[in-house]
Amino acid sequence: MSALICLHPRWLIPVEPRGTVLENHALVIEGERIVAILPSESARLQFPAAEQLALPEHALLPGLINLHAHSAMSLLRGLADDLALMEWLNEHIWPAEKQHVSDEFVYDGTLHAMAEMLRGGTTTVNDMYFYHEAVARAGIASGMRTVVGCSILEFPTAYGLHADDYLSKALTAREAFRGESLVDFMLAPHAPYTVSDQTFGKIVTLADQFDMGIHCHIHETRDEIDGSLKQYGVRPLERLRALGLLSPRLIAAHMVYADDGEIALLAEHGVHIAHNPASNLKLASGFARVTAMQQAGINVGIGTDGAASNNRLDLLGDLRLAALLAKAESANPTALNAAAALETATLAGARALGQANRIGSLVVGKQADVIAIDLSALETQPLFDPISQIVYAAGREQVSHVWVAGRCLLRQGELTTLDQDQLKAKARWWQSRIKAVPVV
Amino acid sequence: MSALICLHPRWLIPVEPRGTVLENHALVIEGERIVAILPSESARLQFPAAEQLALPEHALLPGLINLHAHSAMSLLRGLADDLALMEWLNEHIWPAEKQHVSDEFVYDGTLHAMAEMLRGGTTTVNDMYFYHEAVARAGIASGMRTVVGCSILEFPTAYGLHADDYLSKALTAREAFRGESLVDFMLAPHAPYTVSDQTFGKIVTLADQFDMGIHCHIHETRDEIDGSLKQYGVRPLERLRALGLLSPRLIAAHMVYADDGEIALLAEHGVHIAHNPASNLKLASGFARVTAMQQAGINVGIGTDGAASNNRLDLLGDLRLAALLAKAESANPTALNAAAALETATLAGARALGQANRIGSLVVGKQADVIAIDLSALETQPLFDPISQIVYAAGREQVSHVWVAGRCLLRQGELTTLDQDQLKAKARWWQSRIKAVPVV
Repeated sequence: MSALICLHPRWLIPVEPRGTVLENHALVIEGERIVAILPSESARLQFPAAEQLALPEHALLPGLINLHAHSAMSLLRGLADDLALMEWLNEHIWPAEKQHVSDEFVYDGTLHAMAEMLRGGTTTVNDMYFYHEAVARAGIASGMRTVVGCSILEFPTAYGLHADDYLSKALTAREAFRGESLVDFMLAPHAPYTVSDQTFGKIVTLADQFDMGIHCHIHETRDEIDGSLKQYGVRPLERLRALGLLSPRLIAAHMVYADDGEIALLAEHGVHIAHNPASNLKLASGFARVTAMQQAGINVGIGTDGAASNNRLDLLGDLRLAALLAKAESANPTALNAAAALETATLAGARALGQANRIGSLVVGKQADVIAIDLSALETQPLFDPISQIVYAAGREQVSHVWVAGRCLLRQGELTTLDQDQLKAKARWWQSRIKAVPVV
Repeated sequence: MSALICLHPRWLIPVEPRGTVLENHALVIEGERIVAILPSESARLQFPAAEQLALPEHALLPGLINLHAHSAMSLLRGLADDLALMEWLNEHIWPAEKQHVSDEFVYDGTLHAMAEMLRGGTTTVNDMYFYHEAVARAGIASGMRTVVGCSILEFPTAYGLHADDYLSKALTAREAFRGESLVDFMLAPHAPYTVSDQTFGKIVTLADQFDMGIHCHIHETRDEIDGSLKQYGVRPLERLRALGLLSPRLIAAHMVYADDGEIALLAEHGVHIAHNPASNLKLASGFARVTAMQQAGINVGIGTDGAASNNRLDLLGDLRLAALLAKAESANPTALNAAAALETATLAGARALGQANRIGSLVVGKQADVIAIDLSALETQPLFDPISQIVYAAGREQVSHVWVAGRCLLRQGELTTLDQDQLKAKARWWQSRIKAVPVV
């Protein structure tokens, strides 16, 4: 029999049904699954052999799902801030990537990011980068649930030569990690302006053939829209529609620009949105119309984006930011309330990944991806409503415990699978290398 | 001779001149003042009798100045979120205040807020509330630098009967705390829609007579503008101009709505702005035009507002939010860069309070209001630029030390003047009282 553990939090917030708060309830984990949610007293009687973990001032909730990240970029955190987008990319980020990105860089950077994400309560990352196998290996080493988005673009990088090369590497990597229950793969065409019609066509075919999701930057900036109008005579989304991309397989990262017709189109095709509030602000991309999208029935999850354009891989902070921004953007203080905001970072992410039957909420039978947030801090007192307190007042440093598939990866704030000091030393070593070869 | 202490941080960020980072430098405090900033080695030689404090992975910077707060409202944190402004005020906040606000409530709530602010690196608060003497006593008990904004409005509350009563109480409180070096008083007319022309006239006269600052909510919402147009035929700012309010004495909190002419007017009169980014988003007030205001030469500081409309009294988080928002609002990713953002929360606040000769930057002769931020965390590695790291990556939980006027109020994350457990117990007691009398 697998190990049994009963968690006894002060508040149990299953996310499903939305807004529910159970008091004096326990969540029982057996192996990698949630096997029971029941009154705490009954749990002690029914599962006497289980380990009983008291979490007397904690809220228990599903692990956060980071729906758009470039994890390895944590090694470029703060390298070049406060710059115009094209200067940032052309003169700093792309040259730095060209000089340094390798299997080793991606493994080290992704592991660093995963340590930060786990410490902040994120249990699943939907990544998009190069060196797909390094990302997968980092996921396995950390124990984090990992969706490897295999970047595809037309031009060469250190990792690949052309679109077909990236595609072939993606399928090879996917094959190499079959059977790894915590690792999935997606095809990740970089963006409409870096991928040709022909390659998009192949991606649709292969995604259908191998039942894979598609993860793509779409409508991130005004320039992208203008460029597409100039080159293709239509906005990017219309081009993707014509190419057959729009479906529930697709996660559109950003979607800052969506007119009413495009919102209807996205809803009609069941496209999911990965909203990245901090990155959209920092790069001055704009304000995504989250409220209008949700009202149209579109599923909106949240991502941090990479540490070069956000600097904090802090999903708890970003879901708060999303809730705050949605109100001002829609001029409606009731927009994206606390319970709805919490859902964007949990169940909505699971839906976008096609994994809502397995993760994203605390439901019997689902995977035990669970986090505890200690609400006893001065900063979260007094406490009238635990959901509001988590979304509007708590900080990621209050995350005390994290389980992924029943395995405890953070215990009382201490990582169990990763060595923090070693990760910091590695980051400093990369820092000295990156600094030693100044970008041109 | 007063006690001498040499602080030896890894990075010393004086804020003045903007963007400066000194490495291997020490800051020497004697009594309540900064008496030297010099290379670390020289400091050890010149001040051998001083206590030497190594801060090997820390940045040292001026204490943060919270330019707009209603500290006592920390006891109402999370009581009523995600509501429309008038429903929030009329059905929740004002009834709760009416039932509970008292000298005791204000003292306990302000002390709780001060503990939170100190833990997050805020050394000065520009408050605005009732029970002025309770606020001042909390400031003295905590050791925090406190500007007591004495609320003035036309209608009765538990604290006062009418405008003249509030005014008289303000002057009495000011008199009672003369000689307290850490406590100042301002006249704080609540807002253009709650204060008459006649009362504004008296405030101008008394502020001149007693050399006091004026702190007022101005142009916070569209409704305020529309109401003034209807009632007075002009927008609030024009009305205040005609009444003689506009001067370098005035701190205009919010100023979400400012057209080009109003920006010119504010600049011409030297009015200071207290920008409250989180509160403006949460209440869906809108996006303040910070970039345009700064370009016009207006001094913009930052405030948290009260914990009922922000929930986190986290100035470090709010200066990051201000930096992010400024970029998206002005469609310019270079707007409010990290060094400029840090200045809004330090020197700009000092200027607004008329105290730039005493606080707001690390300069020999100024008061030793100093904080240390530990940048060794995984979340702030690698580290290419300490200012960028503080603004975009660090969290308030990384604040390790706080000194106000040379007195250490936070040491390795531990409050020295306030008892956290006692404050939490008090907050819970108030919570049970507030819950027990449901708002109607």
